[in-house]
Amino acid sequence: MGCTVTEKIIAKHLVEGRLERGAPIAIRIDQTLTQDATGTMAYLQFEAMDIPRVKTDLSVSYVDHNTLQNDFMNMDDHRYLQTVAAKYGVKFSRPGNGICHQVHLERFGKPGATLLGSDSHTPTGGGIGQIAIGAGGLDVACAMAGQPFYLTMPQIVKINLTGQLPPFVSAKDIILKVLQLLTVKGGVGKIIEYSGGGLQTLSVPERATITNMGAELGATTSVFPSDAATKQFLQAQNRAADWQEILADADAVYDTEINIDLSALEPLAACPHMPDIVQKVSELKDLKVDQVLIGSCTNSSYKDLMTVAHMLQGRKIAADISLGVAPGSKQVLTMLAQNGALADIVAAGARILEAACGFCIGMGQAPNSGGVSVRTNNRNFQGRSGTKDAGIYLVSPETAAATALTGRLTDPRALGLQPPKFTPPEQFSIDDSMTLEPNPATEIIRGPNIKPCPKREPLAKDLTGTVLLKTGDNITTDDIMPAGSKVLPLRSNVPAIANFVFAGLDPDFAKRALEQKGGFIVGGENYGQGSSREHAALAPMYLGVKAVIAKSFARIHKANLINFGILPLTFAEPADYAKLTQGAELKIADISSALQNKKNIFADIKPLNIRIELTYDLSDRDSAIIRAGGMLNFVSKL
Amino acid sequence: MGCTVTEKIIAKHLVEGRLERGAPIAIRIDQTLTQDATGTMAYLQFEAMDIPRVKTDLSVSYVDHNTLQNDFMNMDDHRYLQTVAAKYGVKFSRPGNGICHQVHLERFGKPGATLLGSDSHTPTGGGIGQIAIGAGGLDVACAMAGQPFYLTMPQIVKINLTGQLPPFVSAKDIILKVLQLLTVKGGVGKIIEYSGGGLQTLSVPERATITNMGAELGATTSVFPSDAATKQFLQAQNRAADWQEILADADAVYDTEINIDLSALEPLAACPHMPDIVQKVSELKDLKVDQVLIGSCTNSSYKDLMTVAHMLQGRKIAADISLGVAPGSKQVLTMLAQNGALADIVAAGARILEAACGFCIGMGQAPNSGGVSVRTNNRNFQGRSGTKDAGIYLVSPETAAATALTGRLTDPRALGLQPPKFTPPEQFSIDDSMTLEPNPATEIIRGPNIKPCPKREPLAKDLTGTVLLKTGDNITTDDIMPAGSKVLPLRSNVPAIANFVFAGLDPDFAKRALEQKGGFIVGGENYGQGSSREHAALAPMYLGVKAVIAKSFARIHKANLINFGILPLTFAEPADYAKLTQGAELKIADISSALQNKKNIFADIKPLNIRIELTYDLSDRDSAIIRAGGMLNFVSKL
Repeated sequence: MGCTVTEKIIAKHLVEGRLERGAPIAIRIDQTLTQDATGTMAYLQFEAMDIPRVKTDLSVSYVDHNTLQNDFMNMDDHRYLQTVAAKYGVKFSRPGNGICHQVHLERFGKPGATLLGSDSHTPTGGGIGQIAIGAGGLDVACAMAGQPFYLTMPQIVKINLTGQLPPFVSAKDIILKVLQLLTVKGGVGKIIEYSGGGLQTLSVPERATITNMGAELGATTSVFPSDAATKQFLQAQNRAADWQEILADADAVYDTEINIDLSALEPLAACPHMPDIVQKVSELKDLKVDQVLIGSCTNSSYKDLMTVAHMLQGRKIAADISLGVAPGSKQVLTMLAQNGALADIVAAGARILEAACGFCIGMGQAPNSGGVSVRTNNRNFQGRSGTKDAGIYLVSPETAAATALTGRLTDPRALGLQPPKFTPPEQFSIDDSMTLEPNPATEIIRGPNIKPCPKREPLAKDLTGTVLLKTGDNITTDDIMPAGSKVLPLRSNVPAIANFVFAGLDPDFAKRALEQKGGFIVGGENYGQGSSREHAALAPMYLGVKAVIAKSFARIHKANLINFGILPLTFAEPADYAKLTQGAELKIADISSALQNKKNIFADIKPLNIRIELTYDLSDRDSAIIRAGGMLNFVSKL
Repeated sequence: MGCTVTEKIIAKHLVEGRLERGAPIAIRIDQTLTQDATGTMAYLQFEAMDIPRVKTDLSVSYVDHNTLQNDFMNMDDHRYLQTVAAKYGVKFSRPGNGICHQVHLERFGKPGATLLGSDSHTPTGGGIGQIAIGAGGLDVACAMAGQPFYLTMPQIVKINLTGQLPPFVSAKDIILKVLQLLTVKGGVGKIIEYSGGGLQTLSVPERATITNMGAELGATTSVFPSDAATKQFLQAQNRAADWQEILADADAVYDTEINIDLSALEPLAACPHMPDIVQKVSELKDLKVDQVLIGSCTNSSYKDLMTVAHMLQGRKIAADISLGVAPGSKQVLTMLAQNGALADIVAAGARILEAACGFCIGMGQAPNSGGVSVRTNNRNFQGRSGTKDAGIYLVSPETAAATALTGRLTDPRALGLQPPKFTPPEQFSIDDSMTLEPNPATEIIRGPNIKPCPKREPLAKDLTGTVLLKTGDNITTDDIMPAGSKVLPLRSNVPAIANFVFAGLDPDFAKRALEQKGGFIVGGENYGQGSSREHAALAPMYLGVKAVIAKSFARIHKANLINFGILPLTFAEPADYAKLTQGAELKIADISSALQNKKNIFADIKPLNIRIELTYDLSDRDSAIIRAGGMLNFVSKL
């Protein structure tokens, strides 16, 4: 029986378990990446492990999130990251070098390798034929320490692309179509593998747009084969030696197959406030727009911005629009500055923003009250932009540029422009001087806001406490642990950042949790969707949250809960969700031995005097981690 | 007797008083500018004057301060500014178009004209031969309403420049030398006029660097003659028609004369934490530096950044340095992007920041804890960078670029580089599309944080009420109206910001004042010392404060009280201060006619049943403003 691309790569990295769908496996990690919002904690955790040098083939520490620097904390973090990277054998990508996923794709991504990144959009690397998975910082710290990455072997979905994209329709529209078909839960427990004759028309950066936003499907990752287009890209990056061909066998077996005819696609937009609320741009066309932002790890490649430059050249943006453009990397910015395309973008009226994540994570560029913002990034959760009542529409660079010109959400096909013609460059501008090599003699610099990572006690015999909060479905990690320019600088200081847990839903949550010495959270379906931020588990741990009882969990967040010793439980009877109200008192007796002996778990609910059954889906290792009080305790016992 | 440049321009604008040093005068204002941090209140005040269109030759509203957009308030302000400008005949410079002073110099500054701006660096315009003065928002609102600007005719200081700057020494080093000679108090009550054979070697943008930072002398303004270099600049900006020659007469009389030999200057730096602590860079050379920032209204011209590009070309910045470069305007950025200089700057390792004020006002790019930051801007007050314990050194672009290359504060002459050669361009890149023309049909958009500027009723026949607060001596405007990150975003919202009046001294003050429908404040000596912030009068006015009775007043705060209709009174018998206690009930009968007829004023104090005499020092105009209920009413009656 033939193999998928996924199976071929995983098989070469398998260190535990069998390559069967649903089986617990562990894989060797070749490469890691971190960014600065999750990285400080990851390196604090790595330091706590007392290992002299990272054990991966390649680890890179990027600075791309906290680049506004409203106070000393950001630059203190950068200094810490630079010095800790140097000391432990990690390459350091300086602020200004660009967005981690864009730079990693350009300079480090390698077909057939495994990549673990402390950022949920790490699957961008799937565009170059890597198995690239987003995880919590602690998982990445463990990988740097030489530990394998543990997961359940996902199902594999084949998305068969046929035909060719029409003019003004682009890779972003493909992934928006996939999101419309599969929804934000459709990828949970799955790897999305792209296939078919349509592939040959898609360059690596276009493929990376698709695998990047595959994160919004909830998928473990997405992957493309490594083929002639991959070879062309690597050659143009002076990295021909990193190429190897990796194609699925003709008789490879997939769990699901979906066909998409590229020639039938048209410009799409994800509407407020979820990436899977996808409509045709042509059907939204009279929407008045206040702001257009182009960039982010989804759409800031050289191709994306050359396309935008082509559409803006010689034209002016509408009077009521604020247009911001953030190139994805120093490489992209340099090339645009060399060939005049940046001048065209500026002349049209764009504000040039730093080559960083910026607006995508609410790091500046908050829209006006009740505003409509059209963006090329990947998430449009309510409030993520920094403005709670703004509506964010996610679109392709082509649609964004057209919208900037008219001031209304505009189908780029409707403007009568010449279709942008783009041939992938034969040679990118190569200059790795903003990536610093390690130097073990470096002394680590720690600012006053950089506090050690808190640890939890081993699991108690009984879990008791009240329900601190009950939420609905699809709670995001932004709901649990907001980002934005006010909160992100506190990522290295858990006691301080913990004050913001659930701040948008319930501003008193942190205070109540601390007063009651912790307790329980009750959630609906898909609890913890969104980013990989481990602070959404670490900060609740600090506040004393003992367990989250939900209808279902998003994959990365569930792993993070386990890593920090918070028990992820589900309802044996989904109807029991209705029985648990905020303030209810719960007791889960003999929890530790129940987990160890794989027995059923019951919760006694005080005011009702009823008992409900709770379920759990934990591997032996997960269970041991929970019982140890989290990964840090677990690893230091090894 | 001959005239100075200053006298020639002021004479043509004099509408009240005589052109004698120390005499009270009023001058017609031709042009105004505002920026977004002070502009919202200035336009709210202008709106309150009920005047259909600005009466100046030219008024421009710039957005350059609040461009990070951490939440909805910034973009709401931008929207308000754009629409209010359109409605009332003001040009609107969109975010991304650049820093007000740089753009105004390029596109609007006019030799011989007067310019009033609600930004303390408005004197930048002196580089093109304008009398350009910084003032409060209400003063600018009044100028837009056609009112003259009132001031005391300053003394005139002649700075005679001879010789020519050596390689790697630039205009910034001239103004640093002047600051070393005169100190930050040396310009108070003075206009600095530049003269001498050294002028001919200085282009308009270089002169503007000097007049810009003249604000740090405390000077009313600084001015250069309008000569051949001015003509060349205006021609290159397609504005030859705006030129006129304005030279000082050979027998012009100055109050002081200072000689500076340009050829003897060397690179200088203003050291922490004051712009007049000036030392030679060569004597500071081993200082380890963390951050270099190039830009701001002082040093972000095309010449400045071309010089930096020349020095960085083909080189790389030091590993421990974060280098940020913020071009001063869209014109500068476009030209750098067209000619490859921006690509050189990026290739060297610079982070490209938005064309805006940014780091100069602590809007991002805060240094690390205890860090050393070398910058080309104009102020290095402690904490202004956003990092309280950082040390800021103010230098030329040449010194900044040299420092970025070495990682230590570096005299640019020491690197052995080819001296940058720069010929002022014969033609700048002209594109005014980011400056929007007015359109009176525009509807003003007000976000939820933008509230109308409150007005006061005309002065009542009797003033009655209780003493709301009694303070000691030397109360500052920070005591009255605190600043800081919590309070500043509320500057467009007087009802909200009023809650913070006296919050440090007495957290219940605002509540009590509102409950009692206003009343009186009793102060000691030097009441209202510190900054010029008009909210320290505006917010108490909103709370109903009718008069401040003090032993003495700080000059600017007293003027602000008058502007907002709060009567500044002093004790005829200083010993009466002791008789007035918090809660005492006061009645000042027939106040309006007493002021009008210049009669004595008495206050009856209720619980004591005594009468005390109060004094006042008000011009006829001041008295009329108070009786009208403040400047806003006064102006709308004219």
